[in-house]
Amino acid sequence: MSSSGYDVVAIGNAIVDVLAKAEDAFLAQHKLNKGAMTLIDAPTANHLYAAMGPAIECSGGSAANTMAGMASLGGRTSFIGKVAADQLGSVFNHDIRAAGVHFATPPHKGGPPTARCLIVVTPDGQRTMNTFLGACIELGPDDVTMEQIQAARVTYLEGYLWDRPEAKEAFRKAMKICHASGRKVALTLSDAFCVDRHRAEFLELVEKEVDILFANEAEILSLYQVSDFDQAMSLVRRKKNRIAAITRSEKGAVIVGGENVHTVPAERVSKVVDTTGAGDLYAAGFLFGLTHGHNLPSAGRVGSICAAEIISHFGARPEVSLKDLVRAKMGQG
Amino acid sequence: MSSSGYDVVAIGNAIVDVLAKAEDAFLAQHKLNKGAMTLIDAPTANHLYAAMGPAIECSGGSAANTMAGMASLGGRTSFIGKVAADQLGSVFNHDIRAAGVHFATPPHKGGPPTARCLIVVTPDGQRTMNTFLGACIELGPDDVTMEQIQAARVTYLEGYLWDRPEAKEAFRKAMKICHASGRKVALTLSDAFCVDRHRAEFLELVEKEVDILFANEAEILSLYQVSDFDQAMSLVRRKKNRIAAITRSEKGAVIVGGENVHTVPAERVSKVVDTTGAGDLYAAGFLFGLTHGHNLPSAGRVGSICAAEIISHFGARPEVSLKDLVRAKMGQG
Repeated sequence: MSSSGYDVVAIGNAIVDVLAKAEDAFLAQHKLNKGAMTLIDAPTANHLYAAMGPAIECSGGSAANTMAGMASLGGRTSFIGKVAADQLGSVFNHDIRAAGVHFATPPHKGGPPTARCLIVVTPDGQRTMNTFLGACIELGPDDVTMEQIQAARVTYLEGYLWDRPEAKEAFRKAMKICHASGRKVALTLSDAFCVDRHRAEFLELVEKEVDILFANEAEILSLYQVSDFDQAMSLVRRKKNRIAAITRSEKGAVIVGGENVHTVPAERVSKVVDTTGAGDLYAAGFLFGLTHGHNLPSAGRVGSICAAEIISHFGARPEVSLKDLVRAKMGQG
Repeated sequence: MSSSGYDVVAIGNAIVDVLAKAEDAFLAQHKLNKGAMTLIDAPTANHLYAAMGPAIECSGGSAANTMAGMASLGGRTSFIGKVAADQLGSVFNHDIRAAGVHFATPPHKGGPPTARCLIVVTPDGQRTMNTFLGACIELGPDDVTMEQIQAARVTYLEGYLWDRPEAKEAFRKAMKICHASGRKVALTLSDAFCVDRHRAEFLELVEKEVDILFANEAEILSLYQVSDFDQAMSLVRRKKNRIAAITRSEKGAVIVGGENVHTVPAERVSKVVDTTGAGDLYAAGFLFGLTHGHNLPSAGRVGSICAAEIISHFGARPEVSLKDLVRAKMGQG
């Protein structure tokens, strides 16, 4: 990869998370799909929020979390996403810039408010996400410029964007620029239900466009519509010249580089407080490793360390310097 | 005290806290007064926020935290305070109601935004608060009704309100109703610098109006302008028929009931993460105890348990059921 301004530029939903604890009965009562990300409209968001307990607000958004995590590792990152010109938009804007991520997408004025994700965290630490996309639906191809994409060695895209046609166009535009400029395309499948909604297109993307693929076990099984993990992995391995990092929660991750397969164990966590952002921060560590000279197993180890940090506290942005944490765990090398 | 709708009604600033970690050098660089609450204007707030690291948002406000804490203990509480009709106002409104506190003060429209407190937490867990009062300045005597005050056995007031003339009028109106109706007045001195700004009036209040006084060591020394704690305590003890709870951080608290003095040790905390809300939650536990048949040392113990919970995590609202916590620590009795 050539030297350029940023290691990674990400395109994603710009979201403020609203996190509250609840018992499993709350999920049942409100028919929430445990562990999944469900899109909700404004009235549903208001209704659910009113039913939720006291909450905290914390900037989120899958790819935005990944960029904040990479910045905490010392990486140079940039983010493209749409907030509204409102208080939560200011919060998102503050937090991502304060994390050291370049963010210059202008806020949308006069439309829906900044997106929020109502996250219910059950006593087992599992998060159930309910997203009101708000201003995110205003993200379109005009928000993606050739300069931004060319300035980064990798463009990272979240599968969630596929839920909106305008965002999908932005996504396609970015991939086209990437390929024309010798840049790499990274994609996270985001969520098993998201894969289910867009399987045919995701399959095509994964086969034809994606250089670095992130998925968890449920997502990769859903993508290939198989029930056996090894079967899914053999399908992943069919494509040469592609890297894939498939995460399996406490079972660790399987990393595929062409025909080579590496299994990296999960980092130990004394208590899983909140799984929000686990996949996002795994991707942060892995992408940081890839763009900083680590081999695949070592990049996977950085990903595991970052994921372990994020699930040990509330919220999906790191609470400590990931650079210091990784250095402490892996040494200066 | 007679039976009525609420144990306590509180009047205070309705604030959303914005918490970020920083090193002590950040305080020096921005000339922040460590451990204190400083009032800042909108431009200063914007400037400071831009300099702060990634933050989380969490409902706050001293007396509001106290009411949320009391509700978590199982107390019946009500809050009077002013937010704006904006997103942060909705967050405050949600969180206090979700905590189980009655809150019906209408939001102010068309004026300044909802108040925020920019809180810098240093590695020692100490919090330094910078408050932009925003819509709080719109709180006035019309927001305090005879029904609300008479519906509660105790009216709890935060000293911070004294910084604004209209809020001070609301404060005086509430005290007048209290005394005329045989209700109790509780006051927290809030902050040593706040005491310094309003010493003469606070002295008069404490001598003539207050039935239950909360202060920490620095505040009580500032009130009486003495440097010796024992000297301050002898001044506190001069007034009969008044209860005072004077907190001393890790040294515990001294509780005065007329001439009787009780010393209650601090609860052990494995790690002080963030002292935001320590005094507020101490008051929550103490007021709960007082209004639920505890004697003074026992009420003090409840206060200490609640304060210990709040300083063991980020933010000034309880993360667990304080009722369950106190039950576990003190037994069913």
